[in-house]
Amino acid sequence: MTLPLALTMGEPAGIGGETALMAWLRRGDGLPRFYLLDDPDRLIRLADALGWAVPVRTIARPQQAVETFDAALPVMPIGRTTAAPARPVLADGALVLRSIERAVENVLAGNAAAVVTNPINKDVLYRAGFRHPGHTEFLGELAGLQEPPIMMLAGRDLRVVPVTVHLALRDAVAALSTRMIVHAGAVTAKALGRYFGIKAPVLAVAGLNPHAGENAGLGREDIDIVAPAIAELRGEGVDARGPLAADTMFHAAARRGYDAALCMYHDQALIPIKTLDFDGAVNVTLGLPFIRTSPDHGTAFDIAGKGIARPDSLMAALRLAADMAARRHPG
Amino acid sequence: MTLPLALTMGEPAGIGGETALMAWLRRGDGLPRFYLLDDPDRLIRLADALGWAVPVRTIARPQQAVETFDAALPVMPIGRTTAAPARPVLADGALVLRSIERAVENVLAGNAAAVVTNPINKDVLYRAGFRHPGHTEFLGELAGLQEPPIMMLAGRDLRVVPVTVHLALRDAVAALSTRMIVHAGAVTAKALGRYFGIKAPVLAVAGLNPHAGENAGLGREDIDIVAPAIAELRGEGVDARGPLAADTMFHAAARRGYDAALCMYHDQALIPIKTLDFDGAVNVTLGLPFIRTSPDHGTAFDIAGKGIARPDSLMAALRLAADMAARRHPG
Repeated sequence: MTLPLALTMGEPAGIGGETALMAWLRRGDGLPRFYLLDDPDRLIRLADALGWAVPVRTIARPQQAVETFDAALPVMPIGRTTAAPARPVLADGALVLRSIERAVENVLAGNAAAVVTNPINKDVLYRAGFRHPGHTEFLGELAGLQEPPIMMLAGRDLRVVPVTVHLALRDAVAALSTRMIVHAGAVTAKALGRYFGIKAPVLAVAGLNPHAGENAGLGREDIDIVAPAIAELRGEGVDARGPLAADTMFHAAARRGYDAALCMYHDQALIPIKTLDFDGAVNVTLGLPFIRTSPDHGTAFDIAGKGIARPDSLMAALRLAADMAARRHPG
Repeated sequence: MTLPLALTMGEPAGIGGETALMAWLRRGDGLPRFYLLDDPDRLIRLADALGWAVPVRTIARPQQAVETFDAALPVMPIGRTTAAPARPVLADGALVLRSIERAVENVLAGNAAAVVTNPINKDVLYRAGFRHPGHTEFLGELAGLQEPPIMMLAGRDLRVVPVTVHLALRDAVAALSTRMIVHAGAVTAKALGRYFGIKAPVLAVAGLNPHAGENAGLGREDIDIVAPAIAELRGEGVDARGPLAADTMFHAAARRGYDAALCMYHDQALIPIKTLDFDGAVNVTLGLPFIRTSPDHGTAFDIAGKGIARPDSLMAALRLAADMAARRHPG
């Protein structure tokens, strides 16, 4: 892979800047080359404040990142921010969005291998007119998608896909549909083949209810909604299995039997992966016409600017994006 | 501790018998002494069929178990069954119930240290007139409780308590109340002090919704139902903390901050503990006037009689029951 990865600024008052600086300091460990779409001056101020020896070099084109990276952190300037750690500036919304838009432009133009995004602060973005539930939906719109993209969390030995995501549990139960499960399963199976080198992916599909509903003794949704989705996926040639009891599908022996777990709601997916791999899990967006990963944490204002945020998840996101780009095949 | 543990038969077509035989064979590892309330002949047949050298000795009183245990598996006869592995007999319902009733009588009379129960087959019991959702509720009735007992799952380094248990997810959301959470929290805190030697237990209380509801952006229940329960528990002197985002409270560092996690529904509690400790987790019933534990698996008809069922969870249940009895203090 000769193309660099495009890393967005994210909320400049959060930990994105310092985890990027720390990742660059650890670039010796085979970290793929990346560049930031950010304000170079704020990164210089941040490195100074932390006492970290990170030379920042402004670049005009993504291609310059590859030759620059070993000696300095490459940054494509997108404007200026006055935000300080844990002190977001409401006017930064437009800047944060511009960073994402430029990264997508770069990757769609074939000048970046993938987009890696730092965490954003939705409150700030809403003031800038942002009207999406999150990053993922915004990227779907930038890519002109009709169907929403699918979120996957990938850890060392578990991949999970929540079919419903940011909904109250009550609303997730009400919203769940066969169509949503089929869409998520089809997108996941295709992405596992296309970007993860898995020729015949196996999907484990969790039941919604305890014990997968115990033959309707504990709710009908697993019979009425989940099972028909599995049948439909199998009809499309996807090796989907279930509905499985969610509590017994995530231990080590069970995990070896599938490539990704399709989960019905947020915590059913995120509890097992964050329990097993809190710092190393990566958020991957499937269904976009480009590769996008992101660290699986938020802006973490409570520790921003202290230099103690762990760069593990960002580094894992960069590595996974590069791996996906290297393994990508058309189809 | 000089009193033996009373182990119930459970469903005789399930794996309870063979895991008890295997546990006895491994008694060298400091396993506490126990006796079965069972049909001695069916255990002899089972040991013969498996080719396991387990001498079975009939006893008339629990006290005889202590002197018998090192040389033979002590069994108090409760009747005869013709069930074979994976072939339950509908008429066994009364026998299964009698085993549980006798065990409770023994422990309440001060002749056994604790009750450990093997898994039951509710279909068989319902034919015998059983009208309880499960074991736990039946034990509550035998003990004359007004409030339902509380189920705790205890693993190597995590204890979880589901506030709602065997309900469809939709019904669990609808049933959740401040009163239920307070009851579960108070019983749990008291039991941690009384049986686990934890003087000032800390309870981590999970939110119902993703991100614990994100300030009502993802559902109001965490503000309207969960938070008032935490306030009430704190008012009663229980160190309850939360509502916490369920996905970030079960990783190793987070687990070190509390003694038990109070969870709002079945899979929120059982996913993390079974992901971390599939074979070693033990089911503990809190709020009864005696100690009761059980292995955290079912009858497993699919592998019954094959001699491959792992006795780990039964052995963990026996050990934990003995530990709780040894640490028990009045109060």
